[in-house]
Amino acid sequence: IDDGDGPTLDALLEPVHAADIADLIEQLTPPRRREFLNLYSGEIDGEILSEIDESIRDEVIEQLPHEVLTEAVREMDSDDVVDLIEDMEAPEQQAILAALDESDRAAVERSLTWPEYSAGRLMQSEVVTAPGHWSVGETIDFLRGEEWLPDQFYHVVLVDPRRHPTGYVTLGKLLASRRDVLLRDITEDSFRTISARQDEGDVAYAFNKYHLISAPVVDDDDRLVGVITIDDAMSVLDEEHEEDFLRMARVSDESHVSDGPFQTARQRLPWLVINLCTASLSALVISRFESTLAQLVILAALMPIVASTGGIAGTQSLAVAVRALATRELTSANARRVILRELFAGLLNGVGLALILTLAGAIILGSLQIGLVLGMAMIANQVVAAMGGVLVPLGLSKLGLDPALASGTFVTTMTDMMGFFAFLGLASWVLV
Amino acid sequence: IDDGDGPTLDALLEPVHAADIADLIEQLTPPRRREFLNLYSGEIDGEILSEIDESIRDEVIEQLPHEVLTEAVREMDSDDVVDLIEDMEAPEQQAILAALDESDRAAVERSLTWPEYSAGRLMQSEVVTAPGHWSVGETIDFLRGEEWLPDQFYHVVLVDPRRHPTGYVTLGKLLASRRDVLLRDITEDSFRTISARQDEGDVAYAFNKYHLISAPVVDDDDRLVGVITIDDAMSVLDEEHEEDFLRMARVSDESHVSDGPFQTARQRLPWLVINLCTASLSALVISRFESTLAQLVILAALMPIVASTGGIAGTQSLAVAVRALATRELTSANARRVILRELFAGLLNGVGLALILTLAGAIILGSLQIGLVLGMAMIANQVVAAMGGVLVPLGLSKLGLDPALASGTFVTTMTDMMGFFAFLGLASWVLV
Repeated sequence: IDDGDGPTLDALLEPVHAADIADLIEQLTPPRRREFLNLYSGEIDGEILSEIDESIRDEVIEQLPHEVLTEAVREMDSDDVVDLIEDMEAPEQQAILAALDESDRAAVERSLTWPEYSAGRLMQSEVVTAPGHWSVGETIDFLRGEEWLPDQFYHVVLVDPRRHPTGYVTLGKLLASRRDVLLRDITEDSFRTISARQDEGDVAYAFNKYHLISAPVVDDDDRLVGVITIDDAMSVLDEEHEEDFLRMARVSDESHVSDGPFQTARQRLPWLVINLCTASLSALVISRFESTLAQLVILAALMPIVASTGGIAGTQSLAVAVRALATRELTSANARRVILRELFAGLLNGVGLALILTLAGAIILGSLQIGLVLGMAMIANQVVAAMGGVLVPLGLSKLGLDPALASGTFVTTMTDMMGFFAFLGLASWVLV
Repeated sequence: IDDGDGPTLDALLEPVHAADIADLIEQLTPPRRREFLNLYSGEIDGEILSEIDESIRDEVIEQLPHEVLTEAVREMDSDDVVDLIEDMEAPEQQAILAALDESDRAAVERSLTWPEYSAGRLMQSEVVTAPGHWSVGETIDFLRGEEWLPDQFYHVVLVDPRRHPTGYVTLGKLLASRRDVLLRDITEDSFRTISARQDEGDVAYAFNKYHLISAPVVDDDDRLVGVITIDDAMSVLDEEHEEDFLRMARVSDESHVSDGPFQTARQRLPWLVINLCTASLSALVISRFESTLAQLVILAALMPIVASTGGIAGTQSLAVAVRALATRELTSANARRVILRELFAGLLNGVGLALILTLAGAIILGSLQIGLVLGMAMIANQVVAAMGGVLVPLGLSKLGLDPALASGTFVTTMTDMMGFFAFLGLASWVLV
């Protein structure tokens, strides 16, 4: 299709949703993408631009003619403009800001004064407000008279004369009430404002927990500065989950399928090198038992069993703890109970696995003693795994660090070292 | 607080949001929970009940007096009732259904005929509809006259006389338009219906991708049967992410912080036993090289370095592939490119790590040869890890299986076996 025929391409993509066009652009190889943009750039609008993944957005923007870009930006809601330009360098940022109307520009600039990943960056400045003493009829007449309204809005926010939000009315209530009813009499019970300084992850969590659809954002003086809608909160929730998922697997959350091999390799190398170091610690542990191993070489074949099963158990316990911390289900109130639960569960599984290993040792290897050593080491390592899996993320989160980021490395280092040490230590004591 | 004083408790919890009360109930230990429910059960309403996590909801329901339960259920929207009773046994289900009004009961029963985890189970049957030829004024008068309206609704769905949805109008547009404007002239461009048979994960994905707020659900004859709102889609997205996260760490997605130690141990044991088996395969590989190990015991200490670094690389590659499959960013269209990217990135990192190992071998161990063997084995294992990490999930998803579920075990088994085999094989060839 994109071998030269611009008009056909335009016609074909006419009925396609902006999000799908953005997906198409992401999936092309860089040279094909350039060809595509040459043919299609005139049609790229604000909607498509805000759907394109950050990893390739810079590349796309560079290839767009300046008029197309400014035209696209002028159509966008203020939150999408902020999202687009917050990672740009100052001169580019200025070029785009210059293309906006004065009021839009002021809104975007105000948003940019809030910290990165805060509610202030996520909100849109376009809010529909009304004083509480208005009647439903007055409000509807006001909305009909207003030339400019946001694309999507779900509530009318009631504000006092100093722009402090005092409540909100759903559009459904507004439509279903008689014209003479006062707005202040049909506000929702559950009214929550969000501070512009709040972390966007906490905002997404609150939306999901309290089933919010939109929430007013206030500045440090409790004055209304914008509104966050659930679709933005949903995107943040999605991103936060993705970040946790990738971080647990020790991948940078900036990695993307469209990255090239060099970028991919560079993103992953640091954790591999760190693992090289922690694995060397295990090697050091093992090397202390060289004389034991020399006497009974079969131990070398068996020792990874204890270490790797401990690693799995540690990861299990860790994953549950990291999720529970993220969803605020693990708090200081129940931490002690969860730790005891893990300890006991680790002990139970350790004993279960030890029974299997002892039997297997006796039957397959013909040595009850080796089976017993394997089993005892397994119990010790399962307990260490269970404890490490819950204590390490709790500790990191107490220190204000992200428990998903480094826990995995800590925990598997612990289970590897403990696995080799317990097994070889017991073996050199009992068997040799 | 819950040492006996019911009225004080009621007063204290009066201003608290239902979701927070549910959290409180979840965090109590089972005996404390019983005490709490004895004091507070009269106040448990539909909202609190639908917020309580499934893992303890049965326990809570059993302790509620029948009248409280039926009263609570009668207040709930049909989708929440479905969510509550779908996992119950037939007699309990009947008891709750009997408490509902006839029309509600019929709606719930219709929902239950759709497959589990489908859009049909997620939707609520309460939809606000209007014929397209109505004017804005007629619609507002209709809404004002209607006694019963859903708690939350964001669109009026236009239907033809056979209840086929033909478009929808946002409440914002409805409020901002003059009374004589026809509904069919202010419908949204992007109109999507969802089949009741569609998987709820796909529904959540569509909501997030296309920024939907609510979407009409249709049956096999394209007739409107309900509506799904974004807050439900957001919960599903959250759950699906949680499931993937826990599955990658080999934890049942039904595990919960409030589980007891026995339950926890039982949920985790199966994967530990599977790992025992796969680790035994590695032990088998190692045992083939017993004579090599006997001659050069230091190899036993070094071999886990290659295996574990391969495991990390495999997990990295796997996590990226699993996420990309879940977000439909990895498709048959770009699979070949992603596989080549992984291959090349694995090769690059393998060479990088090999250089470090060769140097370390020469300097720390004083043996360039051992360093070279470590390095060569590392390159081989990094390539296997990169390939396994992308091919295994692609293969599983081609077979219609969940790539998050078993990939980890496959991939780490591959990298362990390859790590030991390449290192010991090369060592017995070069060194001994």
